[in-house]
Parts: sequence; structure tokens; C-alpha cells
Amino acid sequence: MSDQSADSAPLRFRRWEQRTEVPLFGASLLFLLGYAVRVLAPADTGPWRDIALALVGVTWLVFAADYAVRIRLSGLGLRFVRVHWLDTVVLLLPLLRPLRLIRVYTAVQQRQERPWLSLYARVIAYAGATALLLGFSAALAVYDQEHKAPGASIRTFGDSVWWACETLTTVGYGDTVPVTPGGRIVASGLMACGLALLGAVTGSFSSWLVQVFTREDERRPPERE
Amino acid sequence: MSDQSADSAPLRFRRWEQRTEVPLFGASLLFLLGYAVRVLAPADTGPWRDIALALVGVTWLVFAADYAVRIRLSGLGLRFVRVHWLDTVVLLLPLLRPLRLIRVYTAVQQRQERPWLSLYARVIAYAGATALLLGFSAALAVYDQEHKAPGASIRTFGDSVWWACETLTTVGYGDTVPVTPGGRIVASGLMACGLALLGAVTGSFSSWLVQVFTREDERRPPERE
Amino acid sequence: MSDQSADSAPLRFRRWEQRTEVPLFGASLLFLLGYAVRVLAPADTGPWRDIALALVGVTWLVFAADYAVRIRLSGLGLRFVRVHWLDTVVLLLPLLRPLRLIRVYTAVQQRQERPWLSLYARVIAYAGATALLLGFSAALAVYDQEHKAPGASIRTFGDSVWWACETLTTVGYGDTVPVTPGGRIVASGLMACGLALLGAVTGSFSSWLVQVFTREDERRPPERE
Amino acid sequence: MSDQSADSAPLRFRRWEQRTEVPLFGASLLFLLGYAVRVLAPADTGPWRDIALALVGVTWLVFAADYAVRIRLSGLGLRFVRVHWLDTVVLLLPLLRPLRLIRVYTAVQQRQERPWLSLYARVIAYAGATALLLGFSAALAVYDQEHKAPGASIRTFGDSVWWACETLTTVGYGDTVPVTPGGRIVASGLMACGLALLGAVTGSFSSWLVQVFTREDERRPPERE
Repeated sequence: MSDQSADSAPLRFRRWEQRTEVPLFGASLLFLLGYAVRVLAPADTGPWRDIALALVGVTWLVFAADYAVRIRLSGLGLRFVRVHWLDTVVLLLPLLRPLRLIRVYTAVQQRQERPWLSLYARVIAYAGATALLLGFSAALAVYDQEHKAPGASIRTFGDSVWWACETLTTVGYGDTVPVTPGGRIVASGLMACGLALLGAVTGSFSSWLVQVFTREDERRPPERE
Repeated sequence: MSDQSADSAPLRFRRWEQRTEVPLFGASLLFLLGYAVRVLAPADTGPWRDIALALVGVTWLVFAADYAVRIRLSGLGLRFVRVHWLDTVVLLLPLLRPLRLIRVYTAVQQRQERPWLSLYARVIAYAGATALLLGFSAALAVYDQEHKAPGASIRTFGDSVWWACETLTTVGYGDTVPVTPGGRIVASGLMACGLALLGAVTGSFSSWLVQVFTREDERRPPERE
Repeated sequence: MSDQSADSAPLRFRRWEQRTEVPLFGASLLFLLGYAVRVLAPADTGPWRDIALALVGVTWLVFAADYAVRIRLSGLGLRFVRVHWLDTVVLLLPLLRPLRLIRVYTAVQQRQERPWLSLYARVIAYAGATALLLGFSAALAVYDQEHKAPGASIRTFGDSVWWACETLTTVGYGDTVPVTPGGRIVASGLMACGLALLGAVTGSFSSWLVQVFTREDERRPPERE
Repeated sequence: MSDQSADSAPLRFRRWEQRTEVPLFGASLLFLLGYAVRVLAPADTGPWRDIALALVGVTWLVFAADYAVRIRLSGLGLRFVRVHWLDTVVLLLPLLRPLRLIRVYTAVQQRQERPWLSLYARVIAYAGATALLLGFSAALAVYDQEHKAPGASIRTFGDSVWWACETLTTVGYGDTVPVTPGGRIVASGLMACGLALLGAVTGSFSSWLVQVFTREDERRPPERE
């Protein structure tokens, strides 16, 4: 929603954003990979867990450096922290970085002649992909918090993925539930983000179906005469 | 969403699609019938289970033959696999064939003078019917995976249908829950499809109600004067 | 959705509908009252349960008579059963009669100069009232089916009302769940109707909020200059 | 929805509303603070619980005085109770006062040059903030009712907040469920309000996403030529 401010930003700032967006998205995936290996690898697998931790640290430093450069280029000083609050949040909680996916899409799109997909299909693809990445991140974080807690019902990573599916779709059977405060905080965040993102998927799918059926109506008469 | 490609397809391809759509839908129902008998018939009912298996095999061969003919007629070669990705998916997972119901509707519709139902009623009917067929297929598949698993809460086909209702509507009491990996994968698919389809039903019903009440407003004044 | 057919119906048919709608709605409430007393009164309360049963029978005969008269007046013969399918359904399952509430609203409205409420408020009021009446009917029917079943979690009418709230809002904690086939069929019906009706409430409330905030925008400038 | 009546109200009434809205919102927060201390403080913490009770009482008297002044200024007499039914409800159930947040927003807004946020962002902010405040109030009220009940699953305030998150998002795992009649009534109210408010958040977020993607379409062509 900080769209207006982005338009009035200095040209160098906007160029930096366009050029770094895709590499930064690659770094986000590396961050997620490192975090996944760190969480999922058994404790006795030698150096893998340490390499993963290093990967997490290095990618986070990359994010921090990018944030610093952008504060500089924006010319906003410390107001940057408030104006670009979403960037501040995803710097502190890097697992939320998928929410910035829309910027990646814009950056990729601007190199192309015309959009790949129709309007609703793009909203569905963006919201669906973000929900999937957030769900996977939340499954990792909740597994990390829960799997050794006493009385936990989320004991394997499979349980955690199943829990994330239940939660994102708001079905909530209750067979696998976080019991630790940390797990519950992650879960509340997933519920809030997931509700909005999947609501966008559902709403756009509904609008798309209505559009398809409307087009049917318009196309039929000429074929008949 | 591959609508544009369908328009520019060769005429022979489009004729083939229009003529085979309804018979293929019949074959889908036969496939579902065969699968249902195979899953639900007790093990000692003599030849029925084998006949059902044969029916499943034969109808699947029909789907494969149709897919091959359409690759040929489309003139796309192997790009067909990617462009018509929904067709590829439903060839590999025939229980998802109800998703193609919209094509059947179009094929039937083109032989008629005017649509049976108003716009929103058609979206509701299409999304509702697809949700019902997918729910029934998922209930069969989950029953197949679960009913002999240790610790399962889905023990009868009635439980499985009840579970499918809970899941499609996202109520999710949790009294009947899949516990096997296979059952959980089917369940996740049903949640995703069901959420979007029932969201379309709900959204269209809401739009339809608003339309009905708007019409009331417009109709009343002339009646009064 | 049988709106077109209603417009082309004979004048006598439409007059009958307009005149009987409100009395029939009163009869529906009497039917519900009779059913409630029959279900909730203890077995040893003397004549009350018999009086309630008689009330249910008499009001149902009124519904049947109205249905017969309307077949006669419509001039459709047996096609009436199919064209007015909603009327046929609510004749066979009188607990679903609240779904016809929209007709009552129309009948009452036509005697008035201008609508009581704005468009979205009317949709919210209609869908909300229907959902409440259906929820109450379903709570009665489920209590009737469940409260003596072995292993039931719905033991008092309070449990049943709480269960109906959970189900209509799709929260579905699972602390109170129907376990009998009859109870599960009623529950599935409530889920389907409730999902659509509460979806209409939610959607209209959302549209109404957007409208209110839009009006704010438009009203402010003139006040300022 | 009593918007029309507000417009035709006497000028003194409208001025009173504009001037008192923000102070009254502050009083609502004090009321909530007092209620929270009263509910959460242990029984043996000396004077804090009594001070909190006094705070609750005094702020309620302020609400009552404001209500009386507005009856006077409106010139409606006792019809005020019915026309301004939302005000009457929040006087009797002060925990529902967050629902009036929209008035505060309007009052603050009128002192400013232009709105802070775009249309959908404002709906999201209003509905989200109201849902948060109502959820916090409901968590307090349910904790108050439940934490000493026999067989309760909500034993700490943390459980209660977790329960409110589950309920507002309609996930409803069922690990923490109110068991007392009082707790269930509060829960039903939260479900109904939360469903509508979060539905508004979801719907507006969806509309906002569609708008962002539409703008992309419009902006690209000129940049390319």
C-alpha cells in the first residue's frame, strides 16, 4: 500500500529495486533452504546443519545490506523504517519474505511484452504461490517449536505440513495442534495471512468463473446466425 | 485459462472436442462407477470387483486414446502437454475429471437456443456439481486409503462421506480425520479444490441475492403509479 | 431462480401468492412451534406433546392445500412440481420453509411506499434471518435425532444450539458432533445452506462497508470548501 | 445503517457527536483496561482489583451520561432507543463498543485534509482493528467465565487469546473450547461479529489485489513506447 511513495522515489532507488528484486528472491529461497536443512536434518549429520546455519546467516546479511542501501538511496532517512514498514517487517522476520513476491512479479513482468496470464489468473497465481511459501515456512517454524514439546501432537514434519494445510484452508480438524506459545504465535500469523491470501484466491476464482460464463453468453449469438 | 489457445486451435480439433465431450463425460461417470464398486464391494463378492477393475481400465484407455487424438489434431506436438495442462492432469489423476465439467456444459449449451439458467445460477450449478462429484471421488479415495489403517477414524463409507462434507464446507469437526499419508494428500487436494469451488458458489449466491433485491427496487415504482 | 416463470404466471395465481404469503409464514412459525414443543417437552407432560403433534399435522395440511391450489391456478399441471421445485422441496421438508422468507419480504414490501432498509442491509437482514431460523430448526432436528443415541456428544438442547452456531459459522470445534446417520444428514444440509446464506451476509456487509467509506470520500470535499 | 437519520439530526446533536467521539473512544479503552485488570489480576493483589472495578464503573457512567445527553439533543425522545439501536446495544454491552470505531475514524478524518489510506486499505484497517479489539474483549470475557469451571479447557489467559484467534479465523481446532453457558454465548457473539468483520477484511484485500494488478496493466504500455 506504499505505492504512491514508490512512484515519487528517486530514480536511482527505483532502479536499484528493479535490479535487485530477482536476486533477492533467489536469496529468500536460499534462506528458506538453509532454514529447512537446519530444522529438518538430524542432529548427528555432521557438517550439514552448520553449513545450513551459515547459509541462513549470510542470506540475512544480504537482506540487511539491501535494506541499508535502500535507506540511503531513498533519501528518507529513518522515516524509511515507517514508510516501507513491510520491508522492515520482512527484514526482522525473514520467513515472511514471500509476501514481497508481488514485487518480484512486477520486476519480471517489466522485461516482457505482455502479461502471461489474464488478470484474475495472475491474482490467483500470486496469492496462491505466496500462501504456499508462507505455509511451508510456517510448517518449518512450527515443527521447530513443537516436535520436542511434551504433549505435542505435531511430532513429524509430515504432521506439520498437514497441520499447515488444515490451517490455511481454515478446516482445523484439531488432530494436530500447536501447544507451545511459540508455535501458537506462528500459527496465529499463518491464520491471518492465509485467510486473506486464500480469500483472494477464492474471490478471484469466483470472479473468473463468472467472467467465463459471461463470455459464453456473448459468444453464442453470432455463431448461431 | 487456456481459452485463447482453444480459439486459435485448428477447426478439426475444435469439432473433435465438441463431439467427444459428452461421451467422454459418460465415460468419466463409468470410471467413477467402476472405482466405486472396486472400493466398496466386499472382497468375497465373486466377479464384481474384477468387472469393476476392467471397467476402470477400459475407460482410462478411452481417456488416453482421446488425449492422443487431441495431441495429433491440435498440431502442437509435445507442447500440448504444457498448454493443455489441465487435460494432462486429469489424464494422470482421472478422479479429478469433474473439473472439466465446464467443457461438457459448453458442448451441451451450443446445441440449444438459449441458456437454461441465469448467469449466477449457472455458476452455482457448475461449481456445486463439480464440488459434489469431487467430494464423492475424494470420499471413495480416502475410504480406500483409510478404512484398514490402524487408529483410523474413517471406518465405513458413511464416515468417509461425512468427512467429505465437513471438509468441503471447511467446518472440520475433527471426529473423522485421515491418518495415512495417502489419505492426507487426497484430503489436501479436496480442501484446495473445495475451497475455491464452494467460494464460487457462495460468492455467486451472494451476487444473485443482491441482484434479486435490486430488481425489486426497480420493479416497484411502475406498479405503484 | 424461477423468477421468469412467476412473471408469466396467470394473474389469479400471482394474487393468490401475494395474499397467502404472510398467513403461510405465520403457519410456518406455528409448525416450528409445534415441532419445538414436541421435541423439547418431557415425555410425561400430559397433553402438550399431543397438542403439538396435532399442530404440526394441521399446519402441514394447510401447506399441502396451498400447494394443491397453486398447482390448479398455475395451469401447469404436473410440470408445476418441476418448475416450482423449491416449493416442492419445502412441502416435503417443512423445516426448510424459512428459505421462502424472501417471498414474504416481497409480499410485505409491496404494500409499502418505500423500502425500510438500504440494499445491502436488506440482503443482510434476509440472509441473516433465514440462517437463524434454519439454524434453530436444525438444532431441534439434530437434538431429536441425537440426544438418546449411544456415545452422543449432543445431550441437551443447549448443546444442540451451540452445535448449530459452530456449524453455521464453519468454526467446527468438534466438541459437539452428530453421530447418528440422521443427525449427520441434517448437519450436511445445514452446512450447505448456512455456508451460502452466511456468505451472503459476509459479502453484503463487506460491500456495505466499502460503500460507507466511499461516501465519506465524496462527502468531505464540499464541507471543506 | 442509521446514516440517513444522522444527517437529518439537529446541528447541536451532530456537533456533540463530533466533539465527544474521540474522548469517548479513550474512555472505551480505559473501560477495557479496567476490565482487563479486574479479570486478570490475582485475587490477593491488594487495591488493584478495586481500583479497576471503580474505573469500569466510572467509564460506564460516562457512557450513560453521553447517551442521556444525546437523547436530549436528538429531539427524538424514546424513539432514540430504537433509531440508534447500535448505541443502545453498546451502552448495555460496553465490550461491544469497538463496533463504533467507524465513528471515531470519521470524527478524526474530518479534521484532516485528505485520507491517510486508499479506500480498501481503510476498510481493512477499520475491520481489522475492530476484530482485534472485539477478539481481545471476548478473550477477557471468556477467560472470566471459564477459567474456574470444572472440565474447562481454557485455563490461562494465553489459552483464551489462542481460542479467540482460532474462533475469529473460523479455524476452530477444538483444543480450547468454552464449556459454560456464559462462555458459549460470548463465543457465539464473537463468531458472528468476527465472521462479518474478517469477511470484510478478506473481501477488501481481494479487491485491493485485483486493483493493484489492474494498475500494472495500465501502467506498462506507456513505459514501453
